[in-house]
Amino acid sequence: MSEKYKYLNKINSPEDLRKLEKSAIPQVCNEVRDFMVDTITKSGGHFGAGLGVVELTVALHYVFNTPKDKIIFDVGHQGYPHKIITGRRDVLHTIRKKGGISGFLKPAESPYDAFGAGHASTSISAALGMATARDLKGEDYNVAAIIGDGSMTGGMAFEAMNNCGVQKRNMIVILNDNDFSIASNVSALSNYFNELYASTTMQKIRDNIWDIAGKMDSLGDRLRRIASRLEDGVKAIVTPGVLFEALGFNYFGPIDGHNVQKLIKMLTLIKEVRGPVFLHIITQKGKGYAPAENDAHKLHAIGKIDRETGTPIKSSGKKIPKYQDVFGHAMIKEMEKNKKIVGITAAMPDGTGLDMVQEKFSERVFDVGIAEGHAVTYAAGMAMQGLVPVVAIYSSFLQRAYDQIIHDVSLQKLHVVFAIDRAGLVGSDGPTHHGTLDLSYLRVIPGIVVMAPKDEQELRNMLHTAVNHYDKGPVVIRYPRGSGLGLDDKPASQIRIGQSETLKEGKDIAILAIGKMVTTSLKAAEILEENNISAEVINARFVKPIDMKMIDSIYSRFDKVITVEDNQKQGGFGSAVLEAFSVKNHTNIETKILGLPDNPVEHGSQDELHADLGLDAVGIANSAAQMLSMELKSETVNDYIKMK
Amino acid sequence: MSEKYKYLNKINSPEDLRKLEKSAIPQVCNEVRDFMVDTITKSGGHFGAGLGVVELTVALHYVFNTPKDKIIFDVGHQGYPHKIITGRRDVLHTIRKKGGISGFLKPAESPYDAFGAGHASTSISAALGMATARDLKGEDYNVAAIIGDGSMTGGMAFEAMNNCGVQKRNMIVILNDNDFSIASNVSALSNYFNELYASTTMQKIRDNIWDIAGKMDSLGDRLRRIASRLEDGVKAIVTPGVLFEALGFNYFGPIDGHNVQKLIKMLTLIKEVRGPVFLHIITQKGKGYAPAENDAHKLHAIGKIDRETGTPIKSSGKKIPKYQDVFGHAMIKEMEKNKKIVGITAAMPDGTGLDMVQEKFSERVFDVGIAEGHAVTYAAGMAMQGLVPVVAIYSSFLQRAYDQIIHDVSLQKLHVVFAIDRAGLVGSDGPTHHGTLDLSYLRVIPGIVVMAPKDEQELRNMLHTAVNHYDKGPVVIRYPRGSGLGLDDKPASQIRIGQSETLKEGKDIAILAIGKMVTTSLKAAEILEENNISAEVINARFVKPIDMKMIDSIYSRFDKVITVEDNQKQGGFGSAVLEAFSVKNHTNIETKILGLPDNPVEHGSQDELHADLGLDAVGIANSAAQMLSMELKSETVNDYIKMK
Repeated sequence: MSEKYKYLNKINSPEDLRKLEKSAIPQVCNEVRDFMVDTITKSGGHFGAGLGVVELTVALHYVFNTPKDKIIFDVGHQGYPHKIITGRRDVLHTIRKKGGISGFLKPAESPYDAFGAGHASTSISAALGMATARDLKGEDYNVAAIIGDGSMTGGMAFEAMNNCGVQKRNMIVILNDNDFSIASNVSALSNYFNELYASTTMQKIRDNIWDIAGKMDSLGDRLRRIASRLEDGVKAIVTPGVLFEALGFNYFGPIDGHNVQKLIKMLTLIKEVRGPVFLHIITQKGKGYAPAENDAHKLHAIGKIDRETGTPIKSSGKKIPKYQDVFGHAMIKEMEKNKKIVGITAAMPDGTGLDMVQEKFSERVFDVGIAEGHAVTYAAGMAMQGLVPVVAIYSSFLQRAYDQIIHDVSLQKLHVVFAIDRAGLVGSDGPTHHGTLDLSYLRVIPGIVVMAPKDEQELRNMLHTAVNHYDKGPVVIRYPRGSGLGLDDKPASQIRIGQSETLKEGKDIAILAIGKMVTTSLKAAEILEENNISAEVINARFVKPIDMKMIDSIYSRFDKVITVEDNQKQGGFGSAVLEAFSVKNHTNIETKILGLPDNPVEHGSQDELHADLGLDAVGIANSAAQMLSMELKSETVNDYIKMK
Repeated sequence: MSEKYKYLNKINSPEDLRKLEKSAIPQVCNEVRDFMVDTITKSGGHFGAGLGVVELTVALHYVFNTPKDKIIFDVGHQGYPHKIITGRRDVLHTIRKKGGISGFLKPAESPYDAFGAGHASTSISAALGMATARDLKGEDYNVAAIIGDGSMTGGMAFEAMNNCGVQKRNMIVILNDNDFSIASNVSALSNYFNELYASTTMQKIRDNIWDIAGKMDSLGDRLRRIASRLEDGVKAIVTPGVLFEALGFNYFGPIDGHNVQKLIKMLTLIKEVRGPVFLHIITQKGKGYAPAENDAHKLHAIGKIDRETGTPIKSSGKKIPKYQDVFGHAMIKEMEKNKKIVGITAAMPDGTGLDMVQEKFSERVFDVGIAEGHAVTYAAGMAMQGLVPVVAIYSSFLQRAYDQIIHDVSLQKLHVVFAIDRAGLVGSDGPTHHGTLDLSYLRVIPGIVVMAPKDEQELRNMLHTAVNHYDKGPVVIRYPRGSGLGLDDKPASQIRIGQSETLKEGKDIAILAIGKMVTTSLKAAEILEENNISAEVINARFVKPIDMKMIDSIYSRFDKVITVEDNQKQGGFGSAVLEAFSVKNHTNIETKILGLPDNPVEHGSQDELHADLGLDAVGIANSAAQMLSMELKSETVNDYIKMK
């Protein structure tokens, strides 16, 4: 450890922090921030959110008796300072790397991580559950949820707030308001926060109130005594959070979330208030690191960057467009041809590629905030009136809108297109973000079409096919995180629904693959050729409907089949193939499903994880050889690994 | 039609309604209410909700130009008066019966049903989608969503409200506030509404405001002009809906929802207000029918009842307890033994059987409101701190919490038990309520245990097994709507996880069945015996993990297998069996999956639907015979049908 970390060097747990004088705490914050910048600019990771909550995190661990007291961070992008002061300082540089610490909070990693969180808006529900358990078991500890203003737009946060107001348990919700979720904020709620903060009347009264508050021992009781004497309307001026008061919370704030002394004072006070407490703090994403303050968007998550300028340290080599960009460009082309097509995102214009579409067609792209359920039913309403909505949501986040796809889209046979990015293993974000269930949970929905492109040109063709599949219900296209193959951008052409394609003919064994696994399977076939095994490789394209002609053809020519997917083995593509064989009464064929296992896959690079799970070319070739009771010649495998 | 329906006799569409003088409208409302009571007390159906919105419905169709203007009812329990005046008066008595009209709204049934709705909280999202489509297409019509205070607690409604406030499109949200969702309301929001309505300051000011409003031509503009001159705080007094104002709506109300003249006046006024408008009306569930006014709970949905007293006209015969009651009693027994067990419901204590548990253990049963997502993560928080939560949610509603089961429960391997009622075909509620996907969407979740009991005693055993399956992740028990077999209540015993049972040995064909289908399969085996076909019947008990010993045993003794489930064929129990054969490399066995088709199943009685879909005993026996290239002797089938 560098000598500049005078205090931090000695903070191996929050206990060490709590031994320090209060006067030392601002310096601790500086060191935590410096350390985070030093480390993450070198190793990469989520960045802006963590820098924004340095003071809050230090204040929380200083005031609360963690891990007995429970601090529940929403999402966990913001968990880096927390990791630094809860014993993970020296392994922070391993974050999001295979075998290293997780980029999110994870109880299995540390007792200080009270509840895991990769998706948004869960913290208040979890906190209320813990407070309930505490009360029923007659235990005594504090529970605090830390939630961003973006996460607050998720319906589940509202459901939880509403329930807290009824249960009246002792717990604290801290709104970390930086007016900047992952995309710039788009909610009425956020406008409301801004108005609260900007109002000059408010400013004056607030300053007075908190100056007085600073001098009071028991702020909560006093405030409540004042408030009870006032009419609702007047109360709204002194307690601006009438929205939260309406839901049964005691509202405090807004206060400056970068003044750690003030935070400590306030947390110490509200710790004693009974019932649900709502503390509203204002922070700045990227605080204290100029490049991130100036462009919080760009520095939400980073690779290696230059510490001084904040500019990425680029790896050499040709840059192949990501699937999300291919999708964005393809959307623009389709929208130019058809005025009815619109795009919908749930707070992810950048990640989905809809940002570039938004620039071109600002009136036809809708960012609804972190609200996947609403996004889908909103699309259903549009489709009912003749638009063709394309809903772009990551695979694992779409789980939030499962009922809406079934109940509002499928049952009404509405033509809504789902463009699902981050399908399969996403890599360093790990288990909460892997999109490994979608083929299974989607293909059971009545009347849905589910496809996955083998490369970026096929993505263009599939989008073209999907938006033109009128009046026939939902259509899904799922594709992986990361880059395509670097193919030229050709005009999109229509694919016949349910039609597979044979990419390589063979005679010993058939490999049926879907999506990203098609290219891997072709490589596997090359390895097999070198071992004198002739493998047929088929790009299934559709998980639903399955190409029954292909099924018959395979059955007539092979007695061994491998299916390959970057989805769980249960109920997915392979399972659909088995069902097809069963329906056709094709017995007497050996089948092997390659896919993801029935337990969460940890984080690591996509290539590392695929290799571990037998889903790289060597793994697939090995499985094929095994089915034929053969062994691959080691030189063919080594050659391949070297080539890679 | 009876002569007492002077006006209603002639109302064959809202156009006929709109031709009437305003003075006639109160009489129309009386007739609609009478007609509904006359019809539904005889035919059964949802009752209280419809009676509460007679005036609102009539006023809406009187003021708005339906179907060009879009009226979107949330849930659709409340849609009966709407059906009466939109051309379905004479078929109302067929409601919820096979071949009759749906109990919910359904665009395929009528152009006046602007959007389908069986689940709660979807209407505002759909309405905003329609308003967006209207604006993009340059069309001109009104869009109004009608949502109950119960549905308003669903997070999705909040997501939609929040988005409306940003988009600022012309649309109307009408809150039908009867302080009574399906269960009595349990939300902070509801307390807030009550306070609004009860406050005496409010009462006075409100009366004045609306008296003035009645005399103004352009209420909206005038009010906004007044409001803009007032400080936030004072505004909160004149516009009590500060919660909704905060979200960007123009709030009007609360007004008496049974004064149809006032409603017409108000709707006429707000139709002209620009931007999102929120109208808060107060109604009474069961209004105008004394027995329903007195016990809105009991008369939420009815069978045949006595028109005068409201008491059910009972069918003769012994009453067999429903699965929900068996579950309730079993919960009480488990909770007596283990203090850590708690129950959670999302606004359905009655329907799930948790109402009786609540009576016994009021501190250990939690009704969180219509908020399935929160319910599950709330349970996860409890489990994290050592409680054993049992979450009781209907199968189709659990789709709302899919991500929470995956992200908050499964990934953290938390011991949460899911008691899933209304699995399989539910009967008269139809497609939105059928629980036909759960085996498929649940079994793909890593580490989950999924079981289904063959009868009520097995439900007791499974609950006992589930609550004692410590520290091993989520456990699901899914069971059907309706009664068990009428077995005696024996003490619960533990079942080994993943262990099936053979109920009848056979040698020609094996029938593997799950849940309710086990009994049906045993009957099928009887029919087969009479046809000299010896069928083995196995109660699989577990869809995950599948009993691999059983799989091996079946393979070693049979070359034909039928799987039977009341779940969709895709990805469900049958699919799990195929996967097991594939893993074990058991080729050479003919398989046939019996289950539900890949399109929505309409409403009708469970028995009718099962028979239609080949899932009754005859259907299963027929499938078995076909696989053996035989035909059932017609007398054996007829005998069976007579017996039934």
